[in-house]
Amino acid sequence: MVSQKILKALEGSSAIRAMFVEGKRMAEQYGAENVYDFSLGNPATPAPAAVNDAMRALLDESDASEGGSLELHGYMENAGYETVRAAIAENLNRRFGTSFDAHNLVMTVGAAGGLNIIFKTILDPGSEVIVFAPFFGEYRQYAANFDAEVVAVMPDRETFQPDLADFEAKLSPRTRALIVNTPNNPTGVIYKPETMRRIAEILERKQQEYGTDIYLISDEPYRELVYDGNREDFLTKYYKNTLVGYSFSKSLSLPGERIGYVVVPDEAADAEELLRGIEISNRTLGFVNAPSLIQKAVALCLEEKTDVAFYDNNRRMLYEGLMKLGFSCIKPEGAFYLWVKSPMEDEEAFVNEGKKRHILMVKGGAFGCPGYVRLAYCVSPQTIERSLPAFEKLAEACGLT
Amino acid sequence: MVSQKILKALEGSSAIRAMFVEGKRMAEQYGAENVYDFSLGNPATPAPAAVNDAMRALLDESDASEGGSLELHGYMENAGYETVRAAIAENLNRRFGTSFDAHNLVMTVGAAGGLNIIFKTILDPGSEVIVFAPFFGEYRQYAANFDAEVVAVMPDRETFQPDLADFEAKLSPRTRALIVNTPNNPTGVIYKPETMRRIAEILERKQQEYGTDIYLISDEPYRELVYDGNREDFLTKYYKNTLVGYSFSKSLSLPGERIGYVVVPDEAADAEELLRGIEISNRTLGFVNAPSLIQKAVALCLEEKTDVAFYDNNRRMLYEGLMKLGFSCIKPEGAFYLWVKSPMEDEEAFVNEGKKRHILMVKGGAFGCPGYVRLAYCVSPQTIERSLPAFEKLAEACGLT
Repeated sequence: MVSQKILKALEGSSAIRAMFVEGKRMAEQYGAENVYDFSLGNPATPAPAAVNDAMRALLDESDASEGGSLELHGYMENAGYETVRAAIAENLNRRFGTSFDAHNLVMTVGAAGGLNIIFKTILDPGSEVIVFAPFFGEYRQYAANFDAEVVAVMPDRETFQPDLADFEAKLSPRTRALIVNTPNNPTGVIYKPETMRRIAEILERKQQEYGTDIYLISDEPYRELVYDGNREDFLTKYYKNTLVGYSFSKSLSLPGERIGYVVVPDEAADAEELLRGIEISNRTLGFVNAPSLIQKAVALCLEEKTDVAFYDNNRRMLYEGLMKLGFSCIKPEGAFYLWVKSPMEDEEAFVNEGKKRHILMVKGGAFGCPGYVRLAYCVSPQTIERSLPAFEKLAEACGLT
Repeated sequence: MVSQKILKALEGSSAIRAMFVEGKRMAEQYGAENVYDFSLGNPATPAPAAVNDAMRALLDESDASEGGSLELHGYMENAGYETVRAAIAENLNRRFGTSFDAHNLVMTVGAAGGLNIIFKTILDPGSEVIVFAPFFGEYRQYAANFDAEVVAVMPDRETFQPDLADFEAKLSPRTRALIVNTPNNPTGVIYKPETMRRIAEILERKQQEYGTDIYLISDEPYRELVYDGNREDFLTKYYKNTLVGYSFSKSLSLPGERIGYVVVPDEAADAEELLRGIEISNRTLGFVNAPSLIQKAVALCLEEKTDVAFYDNNRRMLYEGLMKLGFSCIKPEGAFYLWVKSPMEDEEAFVNEGKKRHILMVKGGAFGCPGYVRLAYCVSPQTIERSLPAFEKLAEACGLT
């Protein structure tokens, strides 16, 4: 006897599950080196050496002091260790000119945990959350956890910046939040300062009109993954009611460890209630607190960053390779995804043509934007190299050459 | 702008929050050694040395192999590493005569995470979850996350075993689950095999009557903390539809690390749907997976156990000390809590009398059972020793001597 919502989810999730199984099967059948799996956003660079070193130092320190184990592996406030939060606040302040302190942060079980406790704190049944298509599909489930809905805003099909006229039209008195994800999954696009300023203007105007607070939630797991001289940005400066959900999954290659944080600036409406609500939600949704050892470890590695040049090299190889073959691609400015226009009207048919040539891609429909596919280039450079002849055959099959 | 549910929670949580603040204030004012804080269920024994050793070995091994970091800190299936689940299944089988394998387990972010993903998988709005009073208060919030409600069954006031006639009366067609927590927080009582068999009989009969599945959820963070020759028990043998939520927080003193697991036996109704639903819930509620390094570490420490003798010694000192002073206590058989009858009709007044003497206790009302208080004896033996003269004064003030 399974709940109605889960019964539905079991049906819905079968397509992605099938892809997983197919990828595994293909790797077994043809050899892993002959399958070009661009389906998963799983970091391909090891964590900086400093992370394991920090963990070892923390373990040794804990062994050397009485009560060290209780401190390192024990409960702390639901918001996380105060020293960890203070260190992150100080690091953000230095890099982005903000003025946070420990009380503005809540350590979270990754960004997925962070988004869920923000949603629990601000959403009522029937609330709406605006997302800019294409968007990370699980936002839908996160909103549904609180009986709220996502409302998708269409992109400009040239630039894949959001269509701001459509954005303005879709805001309503039920809008509680907008999620901004830049650098973007799945397009790799960065929303420029001018775009952010116009988004902020629209939000300010609509808040006034409706007499509501609309929070901008910046979901920024890819903050540090920027290329071509683009600079890391921090969105709280554009709009007062900005909440930040961060994850170390990509920047330090720690996706399995589930570590991130939420920032609530003092100038956000009802900041104190939000912070207390987010702490309570962290506890009552069952997270309780972000895992303890890894909290302390990331606080010692705030100056570290994964090997961005590795992804940059992959980006160039894949983008240039596919453009040469006649594919239309959005040039990625950040993150580790390439967004490719499907040369066939039905992008699922294109995904299937790819599969025949052992290329695994994700259909744009999974991101609320059919007609495109996503390639995750967080793979080895050899995979990209070896995949290009297969893409050439795919281009031929689609009549591109 | 905060959600309606969180607004209510902010009001409700203020009492416990006030106690926290009061405890801190008292420690500052009078010195930590002059405050007897029995309010928190936070382990007082360090993690076994094997835990930090296992972590160091895993870190070294990861550094020594290419791809080691991606394996140790990377994504794995939402259910957790298959090797970890297989090791735990094998350990359970050996200890309890069960026959699980990896596919019966889902690794979770502690027991709180485990209970929430079970609840998401089986509860619909309006569902009821039976709990035996006194009970861990957060069960209420966990059920409310899915618009379900807990229904409390009263205890036998002599033994603090559940009143099974009341249990039978409170089962309804809307009952989806019963939570059993033995050894029990807050009473320290163990439900005996005979009690478990009678509970199972009642559940079988009612399932038949209503044509429903009613899951028994065994919440067992205290499984290994048993005294006086009581044996560790594993409840799947009593009743087919038993799901287990386990945590290493107490058995290995790792509450901050958030590591536990859920077991779904093959013989449970709709076992496959449950397992897939629990995996999906793990992802969509934002846990994604249990933290990776600590998953692998606990799998290497399944033969380890915290220092049970430490708690046993505390148990005797506190129980005997308070009985001598004329207090009525339930003799704890497991866990690390002492359940004391309030000598004053209003147990909140008694808690306040305690505070005046620097003794911090939690009112029974917080566990759905007024008229009693809970003392958590996971403290240093010195705290207990030093507290006894204060308890003596408290006994005098209550007219016990």
